[in-house]
Amino acid sequence: MFSAQTYQDRRGVLQSNVAGGILLFLGNIENPVNFEHNPYYFRQDSTYLYYFGIQEPKIAAIIDIDENKTLVFGDELSIDDIVWMGRQETLKEKSLKSGVHETLPYKELSQYVLKVKAAGRKVHYLPPYQSSNKIILADLLGIRVAELQPSTEMIKAIVKQRSIKEAQEIVQIEEAVNVSNEMHLLAMRMARPSIKEYEIANAIQYFAANKECQMSYPPIVTINGGILHNHYRLNTMKEGDLFLNDSGAETVMGYAGDLTRTFPVSNTFTTKQKEIYEIVLNAFNNAQKLLKPGTRFKDIHLKAAQHLVEGLVDLGLMKGNPEEAVKNHAHTLFFQCGLGHMMGLDVHDMEDLGEQYVGYTEAEPKDTKTFGLKSLRLGKALETGFVLTVEPGIYMIPELIDMWQAENKNAEFINYDKVNEYRNFGGVRIEDNFLITDDSYKLLGNGLIKTAEDIENYRKEHLADIK
Amino acid sequence: MFSAQTYQDRRGVLQSNVAGGILLFLGNIENPVNFEHNPYYFRQDSTYLYYFGIQEPKIAAIIDIDENKTLVFGDELSIDDIVWMGRQETLKEKSLKSGVHETLPYKELSQYVLKVKAAGRKVHYLPPYQSSNKIILADLLGIRVAELQPSTEMIKAIVKQRSIKEAQEIVQIEEAVNVSNEMHLLAMRMARPSIKEYEIANAIQYFAANKECQMSYPPIVTINGGILHNHYRLNTMKEGDLFLNDSGAETVMGYAGDLTRTFPVSNTFTTKQKEIYEIVLNAFNNAQKLLKPGTRFKDIHLKAAQHLVEGLVDLGLMKGNPEEAVKNHAHTLFFQCGLGHMMGLDVHDMEDLGEQYVGYTEAEPKDTKTFGLKSLRLGKALETGFVLTVEPGIYMIPELIDMWQAENKNAEFINYDKVNEYRNFGGVRIEDNFLITDDSYKLLGNGLIKTAEDIENYRKEHLADIK
Repeated sequence: MFSAQTYQDRRGVLQSNVAGGILLFLGNIENPVNFEHNPYYFRQDSTYLYYFGIQEPKIAAIIDIDENKTLVFGDELSIDDIVWMGRQETLKEKSLKSGVHETLPYKELSQYVLKVKAAGRKVHYLPPYQSSNKIILADLLGIRVAELQPSTEMIKAIVKQRSIKEAQEIVQIEEAVNVSNEMHLLAMRMARPSIKEYEIANAIQYFAANKECQMSYPPIVTINGGILHNHYRLNTMKEGDLFLNDSGAETVMGYAGDLTRTFPVSNTFTTKQKEIYEIVLNAFNNAQKLLKPGTRFKDIHLKAAQHLVEGLVDLGLMKGNPEEAVKNHAHTLFFQCGLGHMMGLDVHDMEDLGEQYVGYTEAEPKDTKTFGLKSLRLGKALETGFVLTVEPGIYMIPELIDMWQAENKNAEFINYDKVNEYRNFGGVRIEDNFLITDDSYKLLGNGLIKTAEDIENYRKEHLADIK
Repeated sequence: MFSAQTYQDRRGVLQSNVAGGILLFLGNIENPVNFEHNPYYFRQDSTYLYYFGIQEPKIAAIIDIDENKTLVFGDELSIDDIVWMGRQETLKEKSLKSGVHETLPYKELSQYVLKVKAAGRKVHYLPPYQSSNKIILADLLGIRVAELQPSTEMIKAIVKQRSIKEAQEIVQIEEAVNVSNEMHLLAMRMARPSIKEYEIANAIQYFAANKECQMSYPPIVTINGGILHNHYRLNTMKEGDLFLNDSGAETVMGYAGDLTRTFPVSNTFTTKQKEIYEIVLNAFNNAQKLLKPGTRFKDIHLKAAQHLVEGLVDLGLMKGNPEEAVKNHAHTLFFQCGLGHMMGLDVHDMEDLGEQYVGYTEAEPKDTKTFGLKSLRLGKALETGFVLTVEPGIYMIPELIDMWQAENKNAEFINYDKVNEYRNFGGVRIEDNFLITDDSYKLLGNGLIKTAEDIENYRKEHLADIK
């Protein structure tokens, strides 16, 4: 946990940004795997972590703005619990560490909310993503789950605050990124013909676990990098395959890292692989340079797309004017997704609160229709204190190529004959994490090798390390 | 998956054991960790696995008894999904492997249920443990979550069937037990002063993951074995500690193993540790010998308790007549829990369906009040084909000792002065998995060393293996 003062200050800021009523926070539960008492590992809700820092299931909290007080709701262990689970720090003690002096049993939550409603005061709450919290909220408010109406005012105030990372949060994120860096180096040492994808996925999770870290998301560890959200891990690597590793660690306090590296299973890149790799790396380097407060991330995304197109034109997969090609979304045959997203206590930071609020503004809302842009999670102007990923890529998706070609889509920008030579190429993505500083950016963590040459050399040096 | 015939046969049996109406099965979803699209690993519902074998989130199924047909409900991938997740076997193809020829989109489920209700036919469903399924069921039936009324008829028919394991299920369970055996041997090689509990927990999970196994439950890997459900893993082991490892693997098809071994962190047991260990081992061996069809497991439990008491009397921690002591529940100061439970697709098999149905009968219902017996999950007479755990233990719980002593509880059977010499002893548990055969029992898996001498010798041989 951070200091009690940290949580008090954060709550103070939030309170000052919402007009009145109460702010209701629900922590997460222990989610059952196959029966109630066989749970997945516990992960506290990120907003709860941010304002209270208490890592315990089935607790809630209220900031009563009108009455200027904060309460934590939850049940202390019974003697029966202590017999089974051992003596632990009480909720009261944990709440004090969060600067909260008043704790009440969980069942009191309902009465508190009822009183507020009876007084005609407003109950602000966030969009629940876990079904258990949907049920709890519906019960508390006496409505059906489908009728829940999260508070836009509360969402906006929280997004505003959580978007700007404190120095102590940056320390946490860099810790996550540094563990992630080591996970990636381990994968670079391990990847070779005959090893299975899951062996690498397991090894990096094991490495992170010994640093007391969870995965911040299910790792994508694949020789089919053209499949963007690939969680199939049973393939055996072979000479000539291109290996994509998109994985990151989450610290004990909940902060995420999110890195991607792509490299050949063989000792060196083939010419074809290297050419595409260099295009992605060039787009990455140029995007990185554009990071600074005031610049719209959507513009950086489109600029990166243009750099990708320029490279693909040079290589003969595309043709015509790159700027025009991007305007016509022709790049989305190869770069179907977004250049990056906010990162923090969630790998897609605050995605539960709504992309529209986190990544866009009312004046410039998200484009939810256009293929490509609809997958860009962050579009708005950057601000000092934002933490985000930059992750351009080129992905060859046979199904998409066939679909487009059948329609002769964007034929003025795409050489389909040439593209079909790459249909089984896979995909290349390069991803790092950045902080937006006062006038530019800072790469988070100690840095992870990225050029084709550096990766080849590192792998050559270490191929004997792991049998 | 097993053969299509297997699933068809199972459904046929079930269908013949329920009078009429429809049987509604809900598969599990991908549970969100901290936002909707960041899920925990997917685990299909065990009953769904048993009757359909399809490992895919957000699917359902109906066995329409009156119309004698079976349908699987779920959504096929869209082209958008294929772009992001790759081409996969269709739900139709998967359903065929389960012997189901009719699949419908998930949204059709609601209409089907409405039609059945409108016709005055009965909709049987099981108790939901995941909140998402509580919401889905409530919506389907047009009632509130609190009003859900699972079908006792369906529960009983399923429990009856799933309780008797098929030969091919035993093969699966033995696979799980054998991976679990290896996990325990690894822990025996690793445990030593200065290593942390979580390092062992991580290593055994990593080992299992490379066998494509999940944990069948959160491992208890602790030097405080007196805490029964101990998931705290940050302790550093030291000379003199007693280490308890309760962990098991789950196969790809979902079958569980569940083993416990206890041994010293030092190279050898102390006299005190060995004396308690031998008492537990003796109770274990005697309980094992009693396993056979027709014998009530509650009687074996009480017999094991008596063996524990006899040992504790010899050691001076208890006194008086052991049989009388057990009748007065005096053993529950040391053995607070049950001797074992059913095991199969769930580590506590079918616990979601209700312990009363799985472990007890209407004629002899569960004792839900008495300390000790209320934690015994299995009480009824054993049958050929049951798979279960046997896991006696002795646990020193300071809080419980203080509580009892303050009340002078069972003072005629307990030497509190002597007991207090053991208050920081920790706990010993020994657990294996058994199949009830036609006339006795079979230890499942290849067998894992269990005597103090064997464990000491194994550790001596291997202490140099892992640095």
